[in-house]
Amino acid sequence: MSYRIGILTSGGDCPGLNAAIRGVARAAYQTLDVEIIGIRAGYRGLIDGDYQVMQQSQFSGILTMGGTILGTSRTPFRNMRVVEEDNVDKVHAMKMNYRAMRLDCLVALGGNGTHKTANMLSKEGLNVIGLPKTIDNDIYGTDFTFGFHTAVGIATDVIDRIHTTAASHNRCMVIEIMGNKAGWLTLYSGIAGGADVILLPEIPYDIENVAKVIEERARLDKNFTILAVAEGAMSREEAAMKRKDREAARAQSEYKNISQRVAAQLEQMTGVECRTVIPGHMQRGGSPSAYDRVLSTRFGVHAAHLIKEGRYGLTVALKGNEISENKLEDIAGVPKPVDPDDQIVRTARSMNISFGD
Amino acid sequence: MSYRIGILTSGGDCPGLNAAIRGVARAAYQTLDVEIIGIRAGYRGLIDGDYQVMQQSQFSGILTMGGTILGTSRTPFRNMRVVEEDNVDKVHAMKMNYRAMRLDCLVALGGNGTHKTANMLSKEGLNVIGLPKTIDNDIYGTDFTFGFHTAVGIATDVIDRIHTTAASHNRCMVIEIMGNKAGWLTLYSGIAGGADVILLPEIPYDIENVAKVIEERARLDKNFTILAVAEGAMSREEAAMKRKDREAARAQSEYKNISQRVAAQLEQMTGVECRTVIPGHMQRGGSPSAYDRVLSTRFGVHAAHLIKEGRYGLTVALKGNEISENKLEDIAGVPKPVDPDDQIVRTARSMNISFGD
Amino acid sequence: MSYRIGILTSGGDCPGLNAAIRGVARAAYQTLDVEIIGIRAGYRGLIDGDYQVMQQSQFSGILTMGGTILGTSRTPFRNMRVVEEDNVDKVHAMKMNYRAMRLDCLVALGGNGTHKTANMLSKEGLNVIGLPKTIDNDIYGTDFTFGFHTAVGIATDVIDRIHTTAASHNRCMVIEIMGNKAGWLTLYSGIAGGADVILLPEIPYDIENVAKVIEERARLDKNFTILAVAEGAMSREEAAMKRKDREAARAQSEYKNISQRVAAQLEQMTGVECRTVIPGHMQRGGSPSAYDRVLSTRFGVHAAHLIKEGRYGLTVALKGNEISENKLEDIAGVPKPVDPDDQIVRTARSMNISFGD
Amino acid sequence: MSYRIGILTSGGDCPGLNAAIRGVARAAYQTLDVEIIGIRAGYRGLIDGDYQVMQQSQFSGILTMGGTILGTSRTPFRNMRVVEEDNVDKVHAMKMNYRAMRLDCLVALGGNGTHKTANMLSKEGLNVIGLPKTIDNDIYGTDFTFGFHTAVGIATDVIDRIHTTAASHNRCMVIEIMGNKAGWLTLYSGIAGGADVILLPEIPYDIENVAKVIEERARLDKNFTILAVAEGAMSREEAAMKRKDREAARAQSEYKNISQRVAAQLEQMTGVECRTVIPGHMQRGGSPSAYDRVLSTRFGVHAAHLIKEGRYGLTVALKGNEISENKLEDIAGVPKPVDPDDQIVRTARSMNISFGD
Repeated sequence: MSYRIGILTSGGDCPGLNAAIRGVARAAYQTLDVEIIGIRAGYRGLIDGDYQVMQQSQFSGILTMGGTILGTSRTPFRNMRVVEEDNVDKVHAMKMNYRAMRLDCLVALGGNGTHKTANMLSKEGLNVIGLPKTIDNDIYGTDFTFGFHTAVGIATDVIDRIHTTAASHNRCMVIEIMGNKAGWLTLYSGIAGGADVILLPEIPYDIENVAKVIEERARLDKNFTILAVAEGAMSREEAAMKRKDREAARAQSEYKNISQRVAAQLEQMTGVECRTVIPGHMQRGGSPSAYDRVLSTRFGVHAAHLIKEGRYGLTVALKGNEISENKLEDIAGVPKPVDPDDQIVRTARSMNISFGD
Repeated sequence: MSYRIGILTSGGDCPGLNAAIRGVARAAYQTLDVEIIGIRAGYRGLIDGDYQVMQQSQFSGILTMGGTILGTSRTPFRNMRVVEEDNVDKVHAMKMNYRAMRLDCLVALGGNGTHKTANMLSKEGLNVIGLPKTIDNDIYGTDFTFGFHTAVGIATDVIDRIHTTAASHNRCMVIEIMGNKAGWLTLYSGIAGGADVILLPEIPYDIENVAKVIEERARLDKNFTILAVAEGAMSREEAAMKRKDREAARAQSEYKNISQRVAAQLEQMTGVECRTVIPGHMQRGGSPSAYDRVLSTRFGVHAAHLIKEGRYGLTVALKGNEISENKLEDIAGVPKPVDPDDQIVRTARSMNISFGD
Repeated sequence: MSYRIGILTSGGDCPGLNAAIRGVARAAYQTLDVEIIGIRAGYRGLIDGDYQVMQQSQFSGILTMGGTILGTSRTPFRNMRVVEEDNVDKVHAMKMNYRAMRLDCLVALGGNGTHKTANMLSKEGLNVIGLPKTIDNDIYGTDFTFGFHTAVGIATDVIDRIHTTAASHNRCMVIEIMGNKAGWLTLYSGIAGGADVILLPEIPYDIENVAKVIEERARLDKNFTILAVAEGAMSREEAAMKRKDREAARAQSEYKNISQRVAAQLEQMTGVECRTVIPGHMQRGGSPSAYDRVLSTRFGVHAAHLIKEGRYGLTVALKGNEISENKLEDIAGVPKPVDPDDQIVRTARSMNISFGD
Repeated sequence: MSYRIGILTSGGDCPGLNAAIRGVARAAYQTLDVEIIGIRAGYRGLIDGDYQVMQQSQFSGILTMGGTILGTSRTPFRNMRVVEEDNVDKVHAMKMNYRAMRLDCLVALGGNGTHKTANMLSKEGLNVIGLPKTIDNDIYGTDFTFGFHTAVGIATDVIDRIHTTAASHNRCMVIEIMGNKAGWLTLYSGIAGGADVILLPEIPYDIENVAKVIEERARLDKNFTILAVAEGAMSREEAAMKRKDREAARAQSEYKNISQRVAAQLEQMTGVECRTVIPGHMQRGGSPSAYDRVLSTRFGVHAAHLIKEGRYGLTVALKGNEISENKLEDIAGVPKPVDPDDQIVRTARSMNISFGD
């Protein structure tokens, strides 16, 4: 039997996408009679019929490259809970193009949004396999997504650099780390970088508690404080608001970024000079770490094996040290926030790291 | 209740030792009434009574540091299977010094040798907790040891650099990676670095097969080949020898390192210029990766919690994504070689990586 | 003859300070009969008499460390042009303490502010030697200051990471690089990182020209644009304002950072999504690069040689590939901005990099 | 006027080749009406007529890439001093192909061998411009070659990693650094890495002196010693031999690499455990540093400007902080070894670094 496999990357890009694409392709070429179709710019390419038949050589030399050779775009649906006419049209277009391309299977690399769409297409009768990528690590059912540990390494390197300069002056340094809904990246890099305070979306903070940490450290002659703050960190007041009201309040704020807002508050409360660092998209960029290259490769190879076995409607997952899979319908749309009682949060507390709560 | 905790690092050093020491200390100071005794240079310091009471400030600023602030030494016993008089004396000395220091518990950070001694001391009635560190990842019962992923990152970076220069000339590059008995480091970094051939102690190779890979790649106009070779990799002929004979044969070889031997053989067989890279101890050095800092910290904190709970005779372990523990007696002396049928070996084969077998 | 050398680091910290301190100390201990006095936190320590006699061992192991083991502080004078009473008191205190410490010489590591004070103390009759450090590279009379090339490396790494992620989406990325008055850091890292647009304090930009670059690139199907923007970059309108008015206008702006302001303008003008990255103080942190370690060591050793020769009132300098020196009075207070006609600016223009002018 | 520019990279590859190629191309496309011919694998491609007309897009995205997109090969002449028949044929072939390609100019990127050939072709009437690249920094007339500072950074990183692991045990670590005839790379990275001993081709060593350093350090309770040894370092006995005899003696040695030979000698003389690290070709690999990207770009742009001005028979050079040029005939075949009285050697001595002399 010969196969035509479509492959796309969707959502925010992250390190390891090319390594995973290469894993799928190389294992597929070796174990199957296969033609691989590269779909451009995520689901948009599937909707528009924008694709090309790939040459085997196009998958060479991409293991170490950041970004994605296929391009990506945001999820094509504004609101997947509502059956809007526009959505129906898009789903129809994707099914038509899947058929027009004569695909036997679609491999979709992405995060939560990508997996929701993958599940929808699977329910529509297409053969779909998901691969969980995101620097946010917030996909249910897998111990880790690829891209996450690379981003942790980058954010930790930022904190490391700040440490030396912070120690030379009397200062509080506020580092804003990616993660709007899930705080895993901030939590891991905060611990790895030796932060004194970690603020997460999942654990609302009281700014008074943060100010106390700074003052307590000054009292102990520790002349600097490092805060690792998730983009989506929330104060208790904000957490009590409705989402809509919270976003409106933030839009009106004098400070565009939470780190700037927190720094201004703390400077006023403590009198200690506070500076911000906003590494932003650099957390998504560059070559994947060795860990993520191995993980991406294993995910990709596993996807090829599932295709060989004719098993679809699944997404690949890391469980302990083994790669296996979950049903798309079981994980699509299920968030994986940091549990405030997670072992690693308790570890951080034992290290005297404050969550401001 | 107040505690006196002795802590030592033994065996080859590796990144994360200081992070783990800091984890034990910081969690212990926060949750217990504690005095921490730093024992110098591994078990040698316990035998000689070479130690100091640590100040809390000595555990600050060491999270990112390579090496070990306590120093280390090789395992004090030549041959633990034989009850030699010398060994009996050493064990006696260690027990005496444990009592003289008035320790409530000894925390020993190390690899397989360290854990054997830790188990022996535990059986002699001392309260012992082990922490599994080694860049070789060959300790039974834990998914990963700390230090391993940092070393994988370093070895992968070496392979990455070699890739660009190899691609400019027609060459075969042989990179010798640490690991005498266990091939995990070579396996992971070989996959992460995109090696074409991986030679491991656990999978005896036939040099003819390796030569064929080089020739096949030349035939496909791929003008270079990358070999990741473990220090302890063995040809089939060597694997058939007794250990003593094998070591004698190696000592007589013209080439001191396996990479040089393999390179010379391949150059003669294929006519392709072969060069060697021997990164050696740089694989043990430098700051631990973010992954290993988090793992080391979690291990250290867990050890402190076990002390609080009065649970001894254990070693800390990573199982899936949770830190728990194993009994020292269950894991001491149990090797963890690469299983030739391990999922990750099969993954590598699916990626068309040759093991020369 | 025996010497007592005082040493201090002043102004913003930067990589290489410890390497330079070690250079002075190690060469002084080897070639002179010497006692070294570490003055705490820059000139503040000289004013307050906050210092300690250093042990030779304190200069070991610091070559690779970021920050400064002596601590630092901002220049003690608000406005050195005006002879304020407060300034007179401070100068008096410094002279008194110099004598109280029985110093033969003061070595001051710092930037332009530090050198102004060093020159003032020299004119007051103290034996002073300056060492030019700053990531801004804006000290007159030396080809490079130490710290600069390390910062260029860090900023370039940021741009590199942004490149991969920018290429996956259609975006304009605005990276804000340190440098309020001098654009060297932005100029070098912009070229090294392959930026499309570089905005500097020395070359006022017209935002229309920047928007045109984005649009022109879109027209050529280049789907992303990278801007390297110095903190102190100025539009033509701003450049025409008096400094006071400009600062007032900025303080009232909705956007705290120039990158956020520029991104908002460009997003509105072009419709292309614009994101900002503000690496901030991470550009001052971490281990100095090999280049800066060699330069810092050479500067430090040269200072020790000048002391041996009894030559004071000087600052060390790199000229071509040789270390020599300048008179403090010749360089103190002389700025070194980027000359818009500098060879390297013209090189950038030849590479089709826009300065927005 | 329209131009056809041929470009080739010859000799050992090094970081920055692609950045320099891009510099030439981008400046040429912008300032000239130009077609660029990529000649494959150095002078071999010019001899064989192996080349292609490049597309402008082929020069995009290569700034950060190691290696060379054009491939390289060793210099085509065995012995350029002798006018061999074979050489005459090769020169003839190169002239014929230069004409067949209708080139207006040939840009040759390479080291000393490359420049000798470039000069020969220039004397034969071809329009030639050289660009000095080599990690060895041994090209006369330029302060630095591109590739050098990247290699210094890599070798320094190796020494840094060794430092932490060396400090945990009692050991002497011998790091073998590239450089057969010139010791610049070992000298700079030895200083930057804080080596205790530096052995260079230009300063013959006495192994007794090296052993004394190890013993003296042990006496001062410094429990490790770091040696940075150039591949081509020579003992006094070797230096006294004729080259032919020296090479014969080395070929017969039990140890293939100088680091292994030195380590064995020192271990026997001092009883201290000695280990070797041979980073080899990794010193040529990977992305160029920011410093080298700027330098390569400036060199490339300057070459394009020389073409525009119709100035040939030159090689580009860094003098102080300006890019200018030298005549090929003035620099071809002129070595640039480390002068034992160079300021930087004296700096190293002032830092108490031993050269074993």
